[in-house]
Amino acid sequence: MVAGVPEDCVIGVDLGGTKLLAGLVNPELRVLERTYRLAPPSNDPEDLLQLVVDEVRELTHSGIVAPSDVVGVGVGIPSLIDQATGVAVSTVHQPFDGVPVRDELQDRLQLPVALDNDGNCAMLAEWRAGAARGCDDAVLMTVGTGIGSGVVAGGTLIRGSTGAATELGHMVVDFDGPLCPCTNRGCLEALASGTALGREGARLAGQRPGSALARLAGAGEVITGVTVTEQAQLGDRAAREALERVGTLLGVGIANAMNIFNPEVVLIGGGVSAAGEMLLGPARTEARRRARPPSNGVRVEAATFGADAGMVGAAVLALDLLRDGTPAWQG
Amino acid sequence: MVAGVPEDCVIGVDLGGTKLLAGLVNPELRVLERTYRLAPPSNDPEDLLQLVVDEVRELTHSGIVAPSDVVGVGVGIPSLIDQATGVAVSTVHQPFDGVPVRDELQDRLQLPVALDNDGNCAMLAEWRAGAARGCDDAVLMTVGTGIGSGVVAGGTLIRGSTGAATELGHMVVDFDGPLCPCTNRGCLEALASGTALGREGARLAGQRPGSALARLAGAGEVITGVTVTEQAQLGDRAAREALERVGTLLGVGIANAMNIFNPEVVLIGGGVSAAGEMLLGPARTEARRRARPPSNGVRVEAATFGADAGMVGAAVLALDLLRDGTPAWQG
Repeated sequence: MVAGVPEDCVIGVDLGGTKLLAGLVNPELRVLERTYRLAPPSNDPEDLLQLVVDEVRELTHSGIVAPSDVVGVGVGIPSLIDQATGVAVSTVHQPFDGVPVRDELQDRLQLPVALDNDGNCAMLAEWRAGAARGCDDAVLMTVGTGIGSGVVAGGTLIRGSTGAATELGHMVVDFDGPLCPCTNRGCLEALASGTALGREGARLAGQRPGSALARLAGAGEVITGVTVTEQAQLGDRAAREALERVGTLLGVGIANAMNIFNPEVVLIGGGVSAAGEMLLGPARTEARRRARPPSNGVRVEAATFGADAGMVGAAVLALDLLRDGTPAWQG
Repeated sequence: MVAGVPEDCVIGVDLGGTKLLAGLVNPELRVLERTYRLAPPSNDPEDLLQLVVDEVRELTHSGIVAPSDVVGVGVGIPSLIDQATGVAVSTVHQPFDGVPVRDELQDRLQLPVALDNDGNCAMLAEWRAGAARGCDDAVLMTVGTGIGSGVVAGGTLIRGSTGAATELGHMVVDFDGPLCPCTNRGCLEALASGTALGREGARLAGQRPGSALARLAGAGEVITGVTVTEQAQLGDRAAREALERVGTLLGVGIANAMNIFNPEVVLIGGGVSAAGEMLLGPARTEARRRARPPSNGVRVEAATFGADAGMVGAAVLALDLLRDGTPAWQG
């Protein structure tokens, strides 16, 4: 053990549709070290599993703590998980359908691995130590490549009958709307995710020749959600308009979540939440306009852990597993 | 006590947007007698309270049981209720906003009164003694003048932070869609309620001169959801088409409920559910097409208590109150 750092750390991994964020986390949920990698577009689950293994090993040997002090790994993926088997059942953004992700990672890492949906992970972090602490009813949406979500209702994380609940990103808000990667039409994710933000930015780049977005597009850059957020932060009006449009559509989904769950708070995390009030402002306005009283008074706030929420929540999973559960790899 | 009939009966009242259904119910949830009245369109809550009082008195004195054997009343209304005070907080179809409905009825009836949202009542009936019996995760929608709903998740009826949860009827499924009575746009209720069915029937009556709907409209009859359902049962193709259209839109909302709650079953009750498979068939097909696996495999069924679900559930409320609670009127 390195002096001054608590032993028995875990590594939290948030494997999103286009990136991997991993963190070395202590039992007080302090992030001691982190790594960030773009996830290679791949149809081979092997590539993604190897990426997770590489990043876990890098953090384990980063010198912040002794490698033997890393005692577990938590992983969040944008998939519906069969918790009994650790198999990914249905995944939109990754080639994981039917893959026993948990056991594969346990075998390779020789460490206990806890696996859950990335939205549930993020909700867990906020509920345990963030903006939803002490709430019996709270909703979190993570806006990134897709839209993940987790919900606490009546003091319990909602999981549904087979662990596939609270897919708020695949709630239809425009039944005749654009195709979603999940094959449905008009899902919130198809309208208000980081992917949708990039698409809206590209569209506006075509309409606003003087904008920074247009200059970047003209220089051959692919306009993504990250591009739009960065340019909005630098003051580009077209980029801000794209965020306002996507934030307003996100607000439709938030209004639905208010009417459905009547929570104490709705939290917004994920990569796009880095845009802060440029996204949250229009989302809040639209949600309040559409939700019924008294739910229209529900607070809409940035997640405490921001884009880290999924990673920290994955660490919470691992800490819980080590404290309470018998990991399957020991069986 | 009348021979052969259990004593200690209650009266369940389902006061909908356009009708009142009341039933004398025994502790085994058998409906011994019932009354049905159209609710007068009125902006005066007094009219509706008096209607409830009249029907409760009629059932109490119907001779099925001794009046003294009626020991409590349960009432379901399409309103968000503050359970601490028994006040209706937000009501779309009735002039009850801010009215202390529970206490007003207790004073007039001199009986303990339990009050809840009509969707919660219906879910309670199905959960306790109907198609959701034994389920830890179940969704019910009642399709009538509006769309009510109740949800059991993780073994608990979801109520939200202030009792206003699971307003699935006011879930937006068409963000730019038609105005809803709640002032929002494109709510499920605006597209797939009995009111929407009447509107669709009237529209088709204009397009199909040979149809029964057109003949009725031509004779000056107002085409309501009930008209459409009746004519569909008699074989009118225009009426069946209206049900198919509305059922398909209901299916969008059911798909959302599947993705959000991953329940064991989705139940459809309310007046329009009298249309049976003419409504449920297209709803089921659309829901399965849109929901993600594994939730797309969730059963979609008629509520056991059909259009009685809200009334029977209101009786369950009263029985629970008498068994477990201290009604406010005793305080």
